[in-house]
Amino acid sequence: MTLSIDLNCDMGESFGPWEMGQDEAILPHVSSANIACGFHAGDPGVMRKTVAAAIRHGVALGAHPGLPDLAGFGRRGMDISPDDAYDMVVVQVGALAGVAASQGGRLHHVKAHGALYNMAARSPELARAVAQAVHDVDRSLVFYALASSVQASVAADIGLNVAQEVFADRTYQSDGSLTPRKQAHAMIVDVDASIRQVLRMVAEGRVATVQGEDIVVRADTLCIHGDQPGAVVFAQAIRRALERKGIAVRKVAR
Amino acid sequence: MTLSIDLNCDMGESFGPWEMGQDEAILPHVSSANIACGFHAGDPGVMRKTVAAAIRHGVALGAHPGLPDLAGFGRRGMDISPDDAYDMVVVQVGALAGVAASQGGRLHHVKAHGALYNMAARSPELARAVAQAVHDVDRSLVFYALASSVQASVAADIGLNVAQEVFADRTYQSDGSLTPRKQAHAMIVDVDASIRQVLRMVAEGRVATVQGEDIVVRADTLCIHGDQPGAVVFAQAIRRALERKGIAVRKVAR
Amino acid sequence: MTLSIDLNCDMGESFGPWEMGQDEAILPHVSSANIACGFHAGDPGVMRKTVAAAIRHGVALGAHPGLPDLAGFGRRGMDISPDDAYDMVVVQVGALAGVAASQGGRLHHVKAHGALYNMAARSPELARAVAQAVHDVDRSLVFYALASSVQASVAADIGLNVAQEVFADRTYQSDGSLTPRKQAHAMIVDVDASIRQVLRMVAEGRVATVQGEDIVVRADTLCIHGDQPGAVVFAQAIRRALERKGIAVRKVAR
Amino acid sequence: MTLSIDLNCDMGESFGPWEMGQDEAILPHVSSANIACGFHAGDPGVMRKTVAAAIRHGVALGAHPGLPDLAGFGRRGMDISPDDAYDMVVVQVGALAGVAASQGGRLHHVKAHGALYNMAARSPELARAVAQAVHDVDRSLVFYALASSVQASVAADIGLNVAQEVFADRTYQSDGSLTPRKQAHAMIVDVDASIRQVLRMVAEGRVATVQGEDIVVRADTLCIHGDQPGAVVFAQAIRRALERKGIAVRKVAR
Repeated sequence: MTLSIDLNCDMGESFGPWEMGQDEAILPHVSSANIACGFHAGDPGVMRKTVAAAIRHGVALGAHPGLPDLAGFGRRGMDISPDDAYDMVVVQVGALAGVAASQGGRLHHVKAHGALYNMAARSPELARAVAQAVHDVDRSLVFYALASSVQASVAADIGLNVAQEVFADRTYQSDGSLTPRKQAHAMIVDVDASIRQVLRMVAEGRVATVQGEDIVVRADTLCIHGDQPGAVVFAQAIRRALERKGIAVRKVAR
Repeated sequence: MTLSIDLNCDMGESFGPWEMGQDEAILPHVSSANIACGFHAGDPGVMRKTVAAAIRHGVALGAHPGLPDLAGFGRRGMDISPDDAYDMVVVQVGALAGVAASQGGRLHHVKAHGALYNMAARSPELARAVAQAVHDVDRSLVFYALASSVQASVAADIGLNVAQEVFADRTYQSDGSLTPRKQAHAMIVDVDASIRQVLRMVAEGRVATVQGEDIVVRADTLCIHGDQPGAVVFAQAIRRALERKGIAVRKVAR
Repeated sequence: MTLSIDLNCDMGESFGPWEMGQDEAILPHVSSANIACGFHAGDPGVMRKTVAAAIRHGVALGAHPGLPDLAGFGRRGMDISPDDAYDMVVVQVGALAGVAASQGGRLHHVKAHGALYNMAARSPELARAVAQAVHDVDRSLVFYALASSVQASVAADIGLNVAQEVFADRTYQSDGSLTPRKQAHAMIVDVDASIRQVLRMVAEGRVATVQGEDIVVRADTLCIHGDQPGAVVFAQAIRRALERKGIAVRKVAR
Repeated sequence: MTLSIDLNCDMGESFGPWEMGQDEAILPHVSSANIACGFHAGDPGVMRKTVAAAIRHGVALGAHPGLPDLAGFGRRGMDISPDDAYDMVVVQVGALAGVAASQGGRLHHVKAHGALYNMAARSPELARAVAQAVHDVDRSLVFYALASSVQASVAADIGLNVAQEVFADRTYQSDGSLTPRKQAHAMIVDVDASIRQVLRMVAEGRVATVQGEDIVVRADTLCIHGDQPGAVVFAQAIRRALERKGIAVRKVAR
């Protein structure tokens, strides 16, 4: 059996007259796209164009629901209730599924955005609400969640097909969590070190922690940050490195 | 074969802390609900609660997409392009379909709201965009359009199952259009006269115009205005009058 | 010198087609109005009508800035930065000052709304940002803050004229804070007990705590909750009780 | 007496995470800034930063109110009532005046944006509402309006100090209106021809029309389009050409 990993990237984060990202340049290098659904970014026209572009490139379509906060880009935490979380995920996943259908495609996965992703990675109540929303709209959708997080285990319990997400440019703690950005050594800035970390996670299922020891990690999908200057170059480099090791880049199987 | 007509009513037009309408009181009397999708009214929680209530009452679920104008309640015309119209209908229909699925239901129809309904009843370009959007999301959806309007004929051309919508409280012109509200005799305020107009439209397929002659009209669905003081009483009265004549009240067949 | 207290009430919380509150019925009984500024409620037309009504009743005009969250009515906390808080208060106070000027009035005070009020009552950084914003737009504005809170002391330090706000229907803790709503005995439901608490706060500068002892409190302004069923009756009753004791109801002096 | 003209440019049209324009590069070359107020662009933080930058460059502060349509950038016409127009201008002008005060500056002028500018240039009712709003907030504000338009004459009638606005890159019709963009010869693409047109308008008070004859025009302020690729270069070139002719670039006197 061939080893494989999915490369996912957030997309469709333009809005109205404002452009963001470099979707067309990234699409050739990734296998799945997380497409903003209008709450934190992505107006209806942007959603359509992004879905159409992803279909053209054979990239799997994902909904990327966020908090209702355009000015804050969905990155400011909000004290929402589990019901709020459920409802906003249902509506956004439904909206993107509608766009996908209208363009002749079909929704493949869901990945929460920004503060909603982070809140649901920690709070079991929000994690359950988000996963239940995805489940209730379409239980065949793949659910992307931070590897080893509360979100991942809750979603699996509900019966969703969970893709464990790992990061190339972040360091790990012994409990499997990401080192918070504010701490030293949170980021891996060296591209080669990033690639080495990814190759090990995929091939060996292990990652070194900042504390020094190794931990087990499951790497189903790797997040490519599309809004960074070197994003396209990094996407190309990581893909080439994976393929050189005989690791296929392909979307997570439903 | 039994004569029948659908009674439809706009619903789910509360938003956040603000309530509107009397959905629970109207639901027992109608056969289909047009549910706001968040652009002119209806936040995600309201969408869910309204869908759940309609399912409980056995009322058909419709998406009621509007212009993106909360403060104006989607009643102010906007110079949108056909692409804009297409995109905003796709997103709203998809969102409500997602909510319907999450509550164990299934979307049955689409009816445009307010200024979007009026604009698409007159402009062939907007009519085509709106109908195409519905078609592209799910061609099995019933499309509600003003009887004899450009919107109705364009939607039928595209291949949609069109329900021709008539009004109990509005008078008709010889060309089949509604008398504009600003003109005298636009409204029928007498309940008995309203009911007589409806019974004739359903039983005979004819309506008297303000000019005096009769015209042919197809009445698949009748709009009940839920936001008016006597709405519940009128809904009951019209339903009773229809049933007394042997006309069944039931949703339009898909 | 006559004892006096200000009675303030939140107003102008309708939005677009949705009505909230009973502003016209409450206005005769209060001395100052906190008017929503469009972020959590209050569209531009509602702002104008509310300002005009308050001027007609001789009620002091206050800006009531909130978080940018219509669906949540500004009641859901958000992880905003102090800069965010500063900017959103400046914009909302400016907007209401513009409306006041356009109607021949002048802004008198500012009181933060909902989650913003609560967040600024606890966090010194947010408290400073909110107070600085008010100060920088117009340092002569009176600043309403929870009596004895961080917000009140920070605003006074900056040089603002602070009105300490007390509540008739909430119990107090020995540290001067309100008993959190989730705890038992948080609310005073008996109207006579409410009135007694207010009279004591104004006449003696003291309030009994749930722990049993008395604490010192300064009562410059009393919050009337306008959105509750008995709001008008309570406003009348409290006003009559105050006046019977020779305590004048009037706005806080600038 | 020295001839002079104001060079104005729209600014502060970023929003949340999205950037637009090149304000810092344009500011050294213009004398007044029209700053978005949050309805079509410009969140509270962007408003503050733009006001602060304009003050640093000694550029006059203007409010640039638009329609409430972020996704459409205020460029889609809306069927708003004169009351709607009045209210939305009051609120936006007030908001920017508040930001100006908070940064130690003072609002100098108002120029409507996009569809609101165009609608008010044609409709006397909307023109009156917009001008009255500016007048009622602060009658000392300079009001920028399309030269020779209904908006300009209505605003002058109300008693506002009107700055007649001309365009370097647009051709004129014999009735003084701009050639609609959809027609041939609407745009002047040659920079030298643009500059010649401006110099003649300022020095001689005349402009050639597409019909061939000259008409009289008053040029108080010239619009620099900041969102075009060559905007900075053009701003520099026009300023140099003006100054070479002894024409001062300075804000319109209040």
